Amino acid sequence: MKEERMRVLGVDPGSETTGYGVVDSRGSQYELVEYAGIRAPSRFRFAERLLIINQRLEEVIERLRPDACSVEETFYAVNVKSALKLGHVRGVVLVAAARAGVPVFEYSPLEIKSALVGYGRAEKHQVQEMVKIILKLKEPPEPLDASDALAAAICHINTHRTRTRMER
Amino acid sequence: MKEERMRVLGVDPGSETTGYGVVDSRGSQYELVEYAGIRAPSRFRFAERLLIINQRLEEVIERLRPDACSVEETFYAVNVKSALKLGHVRGVVLVAAARAGVPVFEYSPLEIKSALVGYGRAEKHQVQEMVKIILKLKEPPEPLDASDALAAAICHINTHRTRTRMER
Repeated sequence: MKEERMRVLGVDPGSETTGYGVVDSRGSQYELVEYAGIRAPSRFRFAERLLIINQRLEEVIERLRPDACSVEETFYAVNVKSALKLGHVRGVVLVAAARAGVPVFEYSPLEIKSALVGYGRAEKHQVQEMVKIILKLKEPPEPLDASDALAAAICHINTHRTRTRMER
Repeated sequence: MKEERMRVLGVDPGSETTGYGVVDSRGSQYELVEYAGIRAPSRFRFAERLLIINQRLEEVIERLRPDACSVEETFYAVNVKSALKLGHVRGVVLVAAARAGVPVFEYSPLEIKSALVGYGRAEKHQVQEMVKIILKLKEPPEPLDASDALAAAICHINTHRTRTRMER
């Protein structure tokens, strides 16, 4: 049976920093391709900061050509104002993927934590530690937003793999 | 003194319908160029619906080449969930303008109502009626989202004109 290969872009949209991470899977192996945090300088106006995030993600998608994009679902925000702001960034992330024809999958924080740590109430640093172990890194990936993005990517690979196995 | 000309794209982002309207100003005259409501079919996934709005606005911007984009500021939403959803659409609107190099201006509902009706507590239908009168239309523009978009465009022209006069 041919080893299944898949490349997934995970994104963790944030009002301050938007993390992204690209993970390859070969059979049951995971391999880190790249990760970073995108932080648009606050001296720019909001629309231009959104454009910076949008263009940076488009550059990553064009260069690395992921098969899928995985984003953490958000239902929660401290208040309406921060929800609006976060919504702007998420919109820009989703549209960057859709524009490049990359299918977008959304997972709840519970699904991501369960996929990585085994239970949904795991702490953030436990998730980060698991990302480090799964991707065989020397240090937990920083910033945390990039680690969360990698976690979303791993969660999609996991979910997709389980689904494919069940279909066989 | 040369008559000042200006073309403004107003946008009213909405979770269901996003209205847009383009207005020309020549000296103290306003002229309607075009308006419509963009409604992405609900059978599409959210990311694709955002892409439809994004691409439609980019098409309008490329074809009509506005000097500025005017968008109603939003601080209010019924709840966090609807704020998040609206935020996505707003992000996609702002990024379409920024990508084309069109400067974005945001006005509060109070500023828009004051600019059109003369006081900030005007009712929605009063604003719609004023849009009809200012642009010399036979009927109030429909849908309401497109009328609100035209109101945002008129508000920017007004504000810009007052500012230019004061600077002289």
